[in-house]
Amino acid sequence: MREKGVGMVKQKEEWGALEQWYQSHQADIEGGYLEFLRFQSVSTDLQFQEELRACCDFLSKAIGEMGMEVEVWETAGHPTIFAQYDVSDTLPTLLIYNHYDVQPVDPLEEWEADPFEPQVRDGEVYARGAQDNKGQCFYVWQALKALLELKGTLPVNVKWCIEGEEEVGSPGLSKLLTSKKEQLSADYLVVADVGMHRLDQPAITLGVRGMVAMTLKLQGSKGDLHSGSHGGIAYNPNHALVEMLAALRDENGEVRVPGFYDGVSDLSDEELADYHFEMSEEEYTALFGMAPTGGEQAYPFQHRGSIRPTLELNGICGGYTGPGFKTVIPAQAMAKISCRLVPGQDPVDVASKVERYLMERVPPGIEAKVEHKEGGGKAVWSSPHSKVARAYAQAYAELFQKPCHQLLEGGSIPIVAELAEVSGAEVLLMGLGLPDDQIHAPNEHFGLERLRQGFLVTARALEILSS
Amino acid sequence: MREKGVGMVKQKEEWGALEQWYQSHQADIEGGYLEFLRFQSVSTDLQFQEELRACCDFLSKAIGEMGMEVEVWETAGHPTIFAQYDVSDTLPTLLIYNHYDVQPVDPLEEWEADPFEPQVRDGEVYARGAQDNKGQCFYVWQALKALLELKGTLPVNVKWCIEGEEEVGSPGLSKLLTSKKEQLSADYLVVADVGMHRLDQPAITLGVRGMVAMTLKLQGSKGDLHSGSHGGIAYNPNHALVEMLAALRDENGEVRVPGFYDGVSDLSDEELADYHFEMSEEEYTALFGMAPTGGEQAYPFQHRGSIRPTLELNGICGGYTGPGFKTVIPAQAMAKISCRLVPGQDPVDVASKVERYLMERVPPGIEAKVEHKEGGGKAVWSSPHSKVARAYAQAYAELFQKPCHQLLEGGSIPIVAELAEVSGAEVLLMGLGLPDDQIHAPNEHFGLERLRQGFLVTARALEILSS
Repeated sequence: MREKGVGMVKQKEEWGALEQWYQSHQADIEGGYLEFLRFQSVSTDLQFQEELRACCDFLSKAIGEMGMEVEVWETAGHPTIFAQYDVSDTLPTLLIYNHYDVQPVDPLEEWEADPFEPQVRDGEVYARGAQDNKGQCFYVWQALKALLELKGTLPVNVKWCIEGEEEVGSPGLSKLLTSKKEQLSADYLVVADVGMHRLDQPAITLGVRGMVAMTLKLQGSKGDLHSGSHGGIAYNPNHALVEMLAALRDENGEVRVPGFYDGVSDLSDEELADYHFEMSEEEYTALFGMAPTGGEQAYPFQHRGSIRPTLELNGICGGYTGPGFKTVIPAQAMAKISCRLVPGQDPVDVASKVERYLMERVPPGIEAKVEHKEGGGKAVWSSPHSKVARAYAQAYAELFQKPCHQLLEGGSIPIVAELAEVSGAEVLLMGLGLPDDQIHAPNEHFGLERLRQGFLVTARALEILSS
Repeated sequence: MREKGVGMVKQKEEWGALEQWYQSHQADIEGGYLEFLRFQSVSTDLQFQEELRACCDFLSKAIGEMGMEVEVWETAGHPTIFAQYDVSDTLPTLLIYNHYDVQPVDPLEEWEADPFEPQVRDGEVYARGAQDNKGQCFYVWQALKALLELKGTLPVNVKWCIEGEEEVGSPGLSKLLTSKKEQLSADYLVVADVGMHRLDQPAITLGVRGMVAMTLKLQGSKGDLHSGSHGGIAYNPNHALVEMLAALRDENGEVRVPGFYDGVSDLSDEELADYHFEMSEEEYTALFGMAPTGGEQAYPFQHRGSIRPTLELNGICGGYTGPGFKTVIPAQAMAKISCRLVPGQDPVDVASKVERYLMERVPPGIEAKVEHKEGGGKAVWSSPHSKVARAYAQAYAELFQKPCHQLLEGGSIPIVAELAEVSGAEVLLMGLGLPDDQIHAPNEHFGLERLRQGFLVTARALEILSS
């Protein structure tokens, strides 16, 4: 590992008050965190609508009580919380972004305990949303609360946007952006929804990939058919599905869709030098139980996961897959497909190209349709040299006593590009997540020590930003 | 349609007593049929074990009461009922085969009513198993009962084997065959588990395809992964699955597995002349809502469904396919695959070849295994000129007042080849099923008039066989 990184490692003399505040409030903080995790705020599933509303009420009430002005912005789906604290026109304005919604929990049987009844084991809290994003939202909340209690004010003007539809592509907030342009305007936008590669290596994130997702639906006969009487006669939608999907990528993992890579350029060595690609193949294999063998074989795997676009099959199904065997030719088959995008790619354009490519390959007898525009969102890459990047890197470096690394994240936060545009802010992504936190998967977890570190970094970065 | 077919159309003077018996017992017969259908005898799912046992008890008790000797043969799974009625050494012995187990009912939501609470609408009975095979088992039962009541004996020696594992490939009965060889020996074997192509066209079936089924299981990472952080890095098991499965067939629908077609020969025009391929492309399309576009394009679709082997994907799944969207790279993906076989192909050999072909195509990072030998069973083609074929064709022709057609069936009854071998009998397949009975699918149904026709054909065929 090269000894590169940013931020000066100083003595931590400024940290005393923050650390002391945290220590004296620790029981309340951890109790509040677990309470927050108990809301079953799964945004993709309508049956949880009331849980999201209750979670929103819980948050907005608490944030109002600590002295911020709070508005709840209604949407066609789940509401967004907008909180504001103005200090002075001469100070910069920081917009912070979090979300209170979470991913679905299935497969439920793989959870070791109820995903909405958090359990603490060896200092890690296990629950859906423990990290993504309730954990990271919660330390921001506590940091703002501590600063307000300790100083009676905040070091900079703060706007805080906590939405309830991040995991479904932020449709509601996205629609509100134009009408809320003035309220959202800011100098800096901090998205506290990412992480580091290792517990002992502080890092900020300078970019996320964009995303567009679509669903391919195939229909054959009007009902399921017996695979004996109809095998070799009816075009099996499962065959159509695997043939169409297999055609999406070549044997080297390159996406075959014409124009998919339009606008994508390779980074120069100088540009690459700004970023850390931290994980080795051995570390990846040990962590995830498989070697990093997927994607475009022409690129190193570290690049494939962040600076290269990709196309993934998130779900496929058709026919009978339960216990035993069923001799059926299904009437239907389907796939959920998502593309991660890099700068230069437009989500709508990419989705149209993938749709066209698939529709050109529908075999006779099969009816197909592609439903898309779930997710969406362009990639965002921000400058390593902005004041906000410097401030957070410095806070990390001080806390960890180590230069801070600069990462590019493979995941997407579709609303980030839109928020950056409407707010006019310079963007930074940060967080205390780790690669094995199992976000979006069974047994998601987040550490109580990381909760404290996130609190400290956030509070300290705001102080640095004001100077 | 050529005016070909077998059996002389005679006046139906011999039918009076049988028709009268049925008419006078009709309420009891139909009530008993519905009672039989209420047993949830889904053999593939262990939770229904007690239902299969109850169904077996119901049958064996009733068959004993009508004067046949009954044995229940225990197996590791569900029991087989064996009933026998000896008349005379000078008469031929007929072994009849049925099964009392049924297919699973999913997708349950597509049923218009409870699959195990039969409903009669416009003379059709809707329930799982209404046709396959409880309906056809039931008219055999009533035919034997009527003959015994009317004549105090049967026209020939009868052995009747009703098993409980046909839908899972008859593992229990298959194991018993060697030890039961003597009891099962017969001159003729009639498998009452198939059908006709049209309601007004009587037909017997001279062959069924063989089958072998297998499950392909793929494992990537040790747990589900976030498709943002890992997209382009982890080899997605869904991609591996579609790539491996798409490679199984070429663009003309031919199976690419080396040696798959070994031993398969095309039929001569003379051989083809023995069989009726009844359905036109227009009829098929109207009936099933899709044109017959699947399978080997080099053959007419009527041949592809019976005299050609095929490979079908009965089920595929991997990842998230529920409501909304989940940005996941699944840890696992799987497929259920079955091959229908024709004479010259061996199930074990074909399964090995498919397995080898798949295993050669497992991409790096993915672990794969193929579990097979579910189902199994060679194809059976029997002579159009046997005495049993003549007798049933004659009974059909008399009842329908039309020459009887001779079909080859695309489906499989894996135990048939083994039963034929162990019994030393000439085989015939018959039944009153129709292509749109929705067997193995939601809203399976069978007609009450066809129940009566099956009864009459069976009883009359036994009389003819004795002469």
